[in-house]
Amino acid sequence: MKSTADMAAFWAEAHKVAAALDVADPLAPMRGLFHLPPDLIYLDGNSLGPAPKAVFAEIERAARDEWAEGLIRSWNTEGWFDLPQLYGDRLAPLIGADPGEVVVCDTVSVNLAKVLHAALNLRPGRLNIVAEGAGFHTDRYIAEGVGATRPDVRLVLEGRDATKIEDLIDDDTALVLVNHVDYRTGAIRDMGSLTAAAHAAGALVIWDLCHSAGAMPVDLNEFSADLAVGCTYKFLNGGPGAPAFVFCASRHLADVSQPLAGWWGHAAPFAFETGYRADPGIRKFLCGTQPILSFRALSPSLDIFEDLNMELVRAKSMALTSLFIDLVEATCAPFGVTLASPPEAKQRGSQVALSFANSYPVMQAMIAEGVIGDFRPPDILRFGFTPLYIGFTDTCRAAEALYGILVEERWREDRFQTVHAVT
Amino acid sequence: MKSTADMAAFWAEAHKVAAALDVADPLAPMRGLFHLPPDLIYLDGNSLGPAPKAVFAEIERAARDEWAEGLIRSWNTEGWFDLPQLYGDRLAPLIGADPGEVVVCDTVSVNLAKVLHAALNLRPGRLNIVAEGAGFHTDRYIAEGVGATRPDVRLVLEGRDATKIEDLIDDDTALVLVNHVDYRTGAIRDMGSLTAAAHAAGALVIWDLCHSAGAMPVDLNEFSADLAVGCTYKFLNGGPGAPAFVFCASRHLADVSQPLAGWWGHAAPFAFETGYRADPGIRKFLCGTQPILSFRALSPSLDIFEDLNMELVRAKSMALTSLFIDLVEATCAPFGVTLASPPEAKQRGSQVALSFANSYPVMQAMIAEGVIGDFRPPDILRFGFTPLYIGFTDTCRAAEALYGILVEERWREDRFQTVHAVT
Repeated sequence: MKSTADMAAFWAEAHKVAAALDVADPLAPMRGLFHLPPDLIYLDGNSLGPAPKAVFAEIERAARDEWAEGLIRSWNTEGWFDLPQLYGDRLAPLIGADPGEVVVCDTVSVNLAKVLHAALNLRPGRLNIVAEGAGFHTDRYIAEGVGATRPDVRLVLEGRDATKIEDLIDDDTALVLVNHVDYRTGAIRDMGSLTAAAHAAGALVIWDLCHSAGAMPVDLNEFSADLAVGCTYKFLNGGPGAPAFVFCASRHLADVSQPLAGWWGHAAPFAFETGYRADPGIRKFLCGTQPILSFRALSPSLDIFEDLNMELVRAKSMALTSLFIDLVEATCAPFGVTLASPPEAKQRGSQVALSFANSYPVMQAMIAEGVIGDFRPPDILRFGFTPLYIGFTDTCRAAEALYGILVEERWREDRFQTVHAVT
Repeated sequence: MKSTADMAAFWAEAHKVAAALDVADPLAPMRGLFHLPPDLIYLDGNSLGPAPKAVFAEIERAARDEWAEGLIRSWNTEGWFDLPQLYGDRLAPLIGADPGEVVVCDTVSVNLAKVLHAALNLRPGRLNIVAEGAGFHTDRYIAEGVGATRPDVRLVLEGRDATKIEDLIDDDTALVLVNHVDYRTGAIRDMGSLTAAAHAAGALVIWDLCHSAGAMPVDLNEFSADLAVGCTYKFLNGGPGAPAFVFCASRHLADVSQPLAGWWGHAAPFAFETGYRADPGIRKFLCGTQPILSFRALSPSLDIFEDLNMELVRAKSMALTSLFIDLVEATCAPFGVTLASPPEAKQRGSQVALSFANSYPVMQAMIAEGVIGDFRPPDILRFGFTPLYIGFTDTCRAAEALYGILVEERWREDRFQTVHAVT
């Protein structure tokens, strides 16, 4: 262990480097577009993004002018009915999709049910769903639920039935359900190679983009992706529980079907026909009436992303996570902290996971000091680095806070031991 | 046809009566709790309820204090995680349910899929879904969608396979799916007798309460109802696309299951377990992450209903619809307008449907004159009478406006002929 004076010099130098990086950061002005509480370093935008400053006026307008004044008329005059497709088209460039291939609606979980059934319907006779044993839990739960209504379908899991997911894909595979970026480690799954492997076996791939959409360039169509879902409340800053989205490649749209066949997905939603007749386009993935106020809260963030160079975002993201890892490895490794994310920046999403035996109280102590990340079972400290509003100095301060808590063992304080629900 | 002078005297007298009724109305002060545009008679609260005045501050607080300032912490500190059950418990008395039997979430359509599968799972071996051929279309569409994943299940329709729904219930019937109040005619279906008939055959009943919850006393448990869904954006004034709800009788909770098995319905949602294990209570009907801003917009209306005597609401509702029908029958019948709702007030929900060959342009003309109702195919003028903010004078003015449009044939104007989307 180095002396206190050595460490002070180390951190002073680190801050000098970080400050210089901030000065040179072309994305630095973006931070001004977000409301961020003072004296807080928010490294949990991968769980819930912050509020764009423009969102308050947007919601106020939606509530006062459109709902309260316009009442039912606003469904037409304010274009409420078009929002799922309109926002889908605005979101499409962020995930490498074309207009008409994305619709914003419902929740990730509900949308997963839709696309799982959709993929099974596109591959009749193939009865295996290949999924990740350690991927985000709701993905697997929903696949289980699909299996409950389709007892002929089998769930085959990476990590349980084989080490590599590619080894599970065969001519019984209807679809492969994977996360583009792992929620815990941040590991990026190669979209091109997995899609090619699945397609070679005649299977489809469903991509869960929750931890990549808005965080890095995503190129669904470049890799001939089939179906995808994602959320808008993490890197897309749409607000708590903001509506999710569905992507379906245009080449599948004519043939695809899904069983959550509500009025909004009908080809003639206002004709009140007796039987269901799905819309021929992406609207067939809609179901019931969408929460308009929560929709409108997403709009200001989509504005922010409109002219954004996602390559710049990605470059800064890699620089931020690399800086954090370098600082943590240089200072916290002696305490037993290890990196749980891929060490190669290119294989990492916009987040860093650290493994440490006492992660829960450590994270509580960090939050108490104004650095918000999160804890993920069993022992993960997770930090999201969101280039639009996190800078290099923030990153340096976060690493220094972690070091301080470890070196002084402040995480041992009683107040940090109580386990709260983790969201 | 009476003379213009006779009619003027008729309407003057009608307005005098209406004014007296307004003075005596114990619910009249409730109107002050809602934002209503001036000079508008809003008879479409059965499609989208108006904004409670308290809603703007509630949304502002949720957006600024909770999302923007609290960020991820608000899931715990502001109780976001508890909202679906909390609001369910607040809503429960309005539908005759007990605490722990109602959860607010998702959309009516998605919730219908859950309860349809739930009922099928509770009645294994029974393969018939009995539903209304003329009920709200999304109910039937979702039942079709359930049938698409369960090809063994048959959809049997009232109006197609038999005239009376009771005649379709037999020992192949898993469930009967009905609307408590018909969206078009406003006819109330008798909850006690249908539930008894279904139970006698060993079947379950699913009640769609979209057009009764908040409009009249609903007594699910008094009649041993099994499952129900409903929306909160009509008579419950929760805002456009406000979250829907699910009711499940406590006696079914231990055994019931539904396939939209997302993280929020898991017994240990934050334990990130590999396999799905449903919550033992009503939370098992939850699926994905809920739209918090749209949730919070529902709270002020639930406050309004908290101490409300629903018998008073029902009494005024019957008085309003009866007055409207009396005035319309006295003045508009000669033009060919006929009543499409039950003539008996007790058999009618909080709405009146009129049949008229040129309903579409007539409704456009009424809207142009500040009386908002809606058109429903093929030829229905539909008017919602919501006792919390509609008075007797409003009702009289609406009838007079209809009469004026018919007698002067103002609906023939070109500007009223263009067909817009109907929502």
